[in-house]
Amino acid sequence: MKYSFRNDYSSIAHKKVLERLIECQNEQNIGYGEDTHTLNAKKIIQDKIKNKSEVFFLVGGTQTNMTIIDHILKPYEAVIAASTGHINVHETGAIEGRGHKVLTCNTTDGKLNPSMVLEILNNHTDYHMVKPKMIYISNTTEVGSYYTLSELKALYKCAHDNDLYLFLDGARLASALAISDIDYPDYAKYTDVFYIGGTKNGAYLGEAVVINNKNLATEFQYSIKHNGAMLAKGFVASIPFEVLMEGNLYKEIGSLENECANYITQKLKSLGYKFYSDSKTNQIFVIVTNELANYIKKEYDFEIWNKINDNEVAIRLVTSFTTTLEISKEFIEYLKQYK
Amino acid sequence: MKYSFRNDYSSIAHKKVLERLIECQNEQNIGYGEDTHTLNAKKIIQDKIKNKSEVFFLVGGTQTNMTIIDHILKPYEAVIAASTGHINVHETGAIEGRGHKVLTCNTTDGKLNPSMVLEILNNHTDYHMVKPKMIYISNTTEVGSYYTLSELKALYKCAHDNDLYLFLDGARLASALAISDIDYPDYAKYTDVFYIGGTKNGAYLGEAVVINNKNLATEFQYSIKHNGAMLAKGFVASIPFEVLMEGNLYKEIGSLENECANYITQKLKSLGYKFYSDSKTNQIFVIVTNELANYIKKEYDFEIWNKINDNEVAIRLVTSFTTTLEISKEFIEYLKQYK
Amino acid sequence: MKYSFRNDYSSIAHKKVLERLIECQNEQNIGYGEDTHTLNAKKIIQDKIKNKSEVFFLVGGTQTNMTIIDHILKPYEAVIAASTGHINVHETGAIEGRGHKVLTCNTTDGKLNPSMVLEILNNHTDYHMVKPKMIYISNTTEVGSYYTLSELKALYKCAHDNDLYLFLDGARLASALAISDIDYPDYAKYTDVFYIGGTKNGAYLGEAVVINNKNLATEFQYSIKHNGAMLAKGFVASIPFEVLMEGNLYKEIGSLENECANYITQKLKSLGYKFYSDSKTNQIFVIVTNELANYIKKEYDFEIWNKINDNEVAIRLVTSFTTTLEISKEFIEYLKQYK
Amino acid sequence: MKYSFRNDYSSIAHKKVLERLIECQNEQNIGYGEDTHTLNAKKIIQDKIKNKSEVFFLVGGTQTNMTIIDHILKPYEAVIAASTGHINVHETGAIEGRGHKVLTCNTTDGKLNPSMVLEILNNHTDYHMVKPKMIYISNTTEVGSYYTLSELKALYKCAHDNDLYLFLDGARLASALAISDIDYPDYAKYTDVFYIGGTKNGAYLGEAVVINNKNLATEFQYSIKHNGAMLAKGFVASIPFEVLMEGNLYKEIGSLENECANYITQKLKSLGYKFYSDSKTNQIFVIVTNELANYIKKEYDFEIWNKINDNEVAIRLVTSFTTTLEISKEFIEYLKQYK
Repeated sequence: MKYSFRNDYSSIAHKKVLERLIECQNEQNIGYGEDTHTLNAKKIIQDKIKNKSEVFFLVGGTQTNMTIIDHILKPYEAVIAASTGHINVHETGAIEGRGHKVLTCNTTDGKLNPSMVLEILNNHTDYHMVKPKMIYISNTTEVGSYYTLSELKALYKCAHDNDLYLFLDGARLASALAISDIDYPDYAKYTDVFYIGGTKNGAYLGEAVVINNKNLATEFQYSIKHNGAMLAKGFVASIPFEVLMEGNLYKEIGSLENECANYITQKLKSLGYKFYSDSKTNQIFVIVTNELANYIKKEYDFEIWNKINDNEVAIRLVTSFTTTLEISKEFIEYLKQYK
Repeated sequence: MKYSFRNDYSSIAHKKVLERLIECQNEQNIGYGEDTHTLNAKKIIQDKIKNKSEVFFLVGGTQTNMTIIDHILKPYEAVIAASTGHINVHETGAIEGRGHKVLTCNTTDGKLNPSMVLEILNNHTDYHMVKPKMIYISNTTEVGSYYTLSELKALYKCAHDNDLYLFLDGARLASALAISDIDYPDYAKYTDVFYIGGTKNGAYLGEAVVINNKNLATEFQYSIKHNGAMLAKGFVASIPFEVLMEGNLYKEIGSLENECANYITQKLKSLGYKFYSDSKTNQIFVIVTNELANYIKKEYDFEIWNKINDNEVAIRLVTSFTTTLEISKEFIEYLKQYK
Repeated sequence: MKYSFRNDYSSIAHKKVLERLIECQNEQNIGYGEDTHTLNAKKIIQDKIKNKSEVFFLVGGTQTNMTIIDHILKPYEAVIAASTGHINVHETGAIEGRGHKVLTCNTTDGKLNPSMVLEILNNHTDYHMVKPKMIYISNTTEVGSYYTLSELKALYKCAHDNDLYLFLDGARLASALAISDIDYPDYAKYTDVFYIGGTKNGAYLGEAVVINNKNLATEFQYSIKHNGAMLAKGFVASIPFEVLMEGNLYKEIGSLENECANYITQKLKSLGYKFYSDSKTNQIFVIVTNELANYIKKEYDFEIWNKINDNEVAIRLVTSFTTTLEISKEFIEYLKQYK
Repeated sequence: MKYSFRNDYSSIAHKKVLERLIECQNEQNIGYGEDTHTLNAKKIIQDKIKNKSEVFFLVGGTQTNMTIIDHILKPYEAVIAASTGHINVHETGAIEGRGHKVLTCNTTDGKLNPSMVLEILNNHTDYHMVKPKMIYISNTTEVGSYYTLSELKALYKCAHDNDLYLFLDGARLASALAISDIDYPDYAKYTDVFYIGGTKNGAYLGEAVVINNKNLATEFQYSIKHNGAMLAKGFVASIPFEVLMEGNLYKEIGSLENECANYITQKLKSLGYKFYSDSKTNQIFVIVTNELANYIKKEYDFEIWNKINDNEVAIRLVTSFTTTLEISKEFIEYLKQYK
């Protein structure tokens, strides 16, 4: 196999992250996230977002979503999400496992807007139904789209006008930062809580939870432990963020991913391919015949996203921190050689 | 500070584990534990325990206990544990958070025996009370004791005579393997499920869940994801086990830990110290005056375990994969210089 | 006010039920559903359904749905329902509160069919998503429609071909029995579990859970108590069923309800009213102007179901065991006097 | 059989309660506890306790405990109870089923005091353990003892000094009111929430939850429904309280129960019987030989509470609203005839 476009979590970690890990190997640190690496990573993030938000380091995306929602919602409260949202589809009921209904909106592009939220609120007005209390969005979304700053502001205003919390899942925040006009401080200003994804952006693991709404941060460590999400070696989850958030590395990773993905997308378009969704970020959803899918599979790995008809499938190609323009070009050359 | 005896998870990882991680950095692997490292680690463990048990790699102890118990028990079923058991005391209600009562036995040494189990069964005979369905033990225990093979066999027989499952928490299994007559294959024979702790034995993280009772393994991956315990980069959790379980490294780590701990214990005894519990494993619980505790703290870190009276405290000293006999000797010398 | 068509649970109980209650007032009975009334009611139901199913008596609909689903599903398993299903809309997240996702199908008439179920199964094929394990249907449905025997058989076949359980919510089973070709024994043959609703059919409270699939009945009493659903005075919930299920009373109540509802519907049709849904059972969903709604409200109570536009609303009129043809005629006369 | 002393919930309801039910049979009422009976019962209770507390009517004890605790505690918070407490022993894990640990104190008499509470607080000081947040007590207790006003005040002060809530389970409050110096208004003053038990004091079912701490009442109806505890016919649960709380009936029931129980206890003492616990309320725990137990069983029902040794058992005799002094005298006569 030449290369895997299957996902953005197939390689252990960015070279610089691993170098730092090795540098620290002879240290002895305090446990449970009370160590100096964790404090330092927290400070770097606070500087970046220009806000004294509380910061906690968890392991993976589903765990992070589950812990945050478990911490914030009362038993009878629900979270609003796009029907394509990760918490609705790909978390094996982790949110419901904590007792909460996910109220869904059908969207064309994986993005929520205030009118969708208001429609749900209008339908949930008494104690016979769950009480909507949180809006969940992802940036970039699960289908490759992204929010603009004005869209984020509108949702945040809608949330606060209606006594809801806005929670932003940043599993792929690097790609979002690289393309959207939403910058670090905006995430602190226009969400109650968000997380900076490490796993899909060059860390061996780790998600940095940033709680901007101070009321929601109280006793969050109890919820982390209660959800089985507390690392004894907390520094193992924070060290990658010391590296990724220093300077511009995190956003640069997103930029390169987007650049490679856009290169591939443009070439595919010029070759006449149809797309399953319109994405400018690091996930490409393209429609190919079954035969072509088999041809690609000989040298490149990818995920089959959806069956289109008996002859065609939508496949997902994902660029990551290991993808280069060279790899992307080779891939296009390989495609051109088909038949 | 000269050295921290605070716990066995203060350093990132054993040198060999980190070396292997670096060697693999340019690979691309499949996600979610379906990669070749995970398969290989599973095979090494199966060879070691001489059984085709199912093996899964999770992140930390509380998460592992929570996921296993959530997977196995029905909503109204309960788990029996020593009152000092990790699941009863130090998991912030993670087991109850999954809906299950922990039924406790008071013990003198942190160890369960069949008569304790039977007493609980005799008191839980109808549907007005929870149904005891699982025995939870730790080896080594939370207070430094360990089970012998005959004790383990007796509990396993008791479990199966009474339609219970036996689950063994091996967060500190290295230390147990080094001192007890229970060998790897015995854990496969005399438990329904156990785990081989990585976090406290030289891995940067990771616990290897070994399910010997095949019925309990069905759909375990659903439960892993449902509990937010599935790593996208599954190989990150299994690579340490490829290293630790190769040859004898894991048990050697336990041996050295025990050796250093025993050296310290013997010296302390000869210096007239009293002990809070009788431990032959890598945790030492020793009683010191408040003044001595302060003196030690200047150069060595440790945990204050319990207040004994106004003048004395029990402190816990833990040896780890980074402890050497030299460090242990220096520590004793430092103690001798007191007053 | 002349009469309330607001719901079918506005009056305490059918006269015969209350008479029986008074007759029994000097008895002393054993607690927790182990009394002779409960055994007798169980036997009457077994005779009626011609099957030795297990029978338990709970208090209300949401509690019954919650307890059954909690008992049957594993933590990561989900239940399939119409998006209009009671468990999806009107139980304040009770099912999610027990950890389970409700997977929904959009329907035109509140009824599921095998192709809807299969579509959900096709989209839930691995451990990253919940595992669908149960089909939930209501008869009559929440929008007034009902299943035929052939439809029920098809769903049951679909369930068992795909290793799913079929659960039928019979909160309004009296109305269903009176109109559909599904008779008592068919409910035993073609569902794994169903319940015979008491609260909405003449009991002061009570739902009779009938578990046809014996494997699902094991230890059900533990789940009843675990869900706070066990009555100390179990006989209070079973006495109404001794009365209602004797002879033909239960079905007669449904017949009269349907008859009154159909009388009203036919008259409304002849008067030119439009309907919000096509119902032949005891719930009528009719569209009226806001002014007419206000006129009706002076003398008759009802529920506003949905806003249609600025001038019109859909209202729900429900007939119950206290409705008579006379009351229905008076209501139509009152309507005729409008304007 | 002459009479059953098995429990205080063997007969349907007090004659006056049933008379009132019959009187109301032709009414039509609004659902879900928004009816006039419920409002009236609430007002009667507010008058009795001289406080504008919120009042809700639920069905049974376990359900009430589960709903209140689910409503008040955060996921990682725990409730402190006597090890004999109903929530710890006889609710089949309903509290853990809602995610909360029950922290227990061993007592000699089933009663908590501030020093027990403080000991638990001293042992739960960080996020590795659950956070104690509520004290749960029962009056009368599960072993027949009762709290005095000064004891209640001390616990309430302890609770509020330590940021805990005090919740009092009044399943047998009638008996407590009749013997203790705690009067209705004291329950409003010195608890955050309590309930007035109906099921064991002459109602066919029903427990009146009284929330004195207004913050805890917010959105309680959501929690009722979420826990499957909301009756469609809410008036069915409140009508008994209109009757029982009018005038002095509720306390009179407790007085007669206590009087009969004390008569039996005194006679048994004078006949030389030993007691398993010292009770002045309506539960008598007396030790008898196996042979005597068999003799009694021929004519009187009771519960075997505990095996004392091979020859003796502790049995529980409970007086109820149907017990009379005559019945009690006959029972003593029957005992005297033994051998």
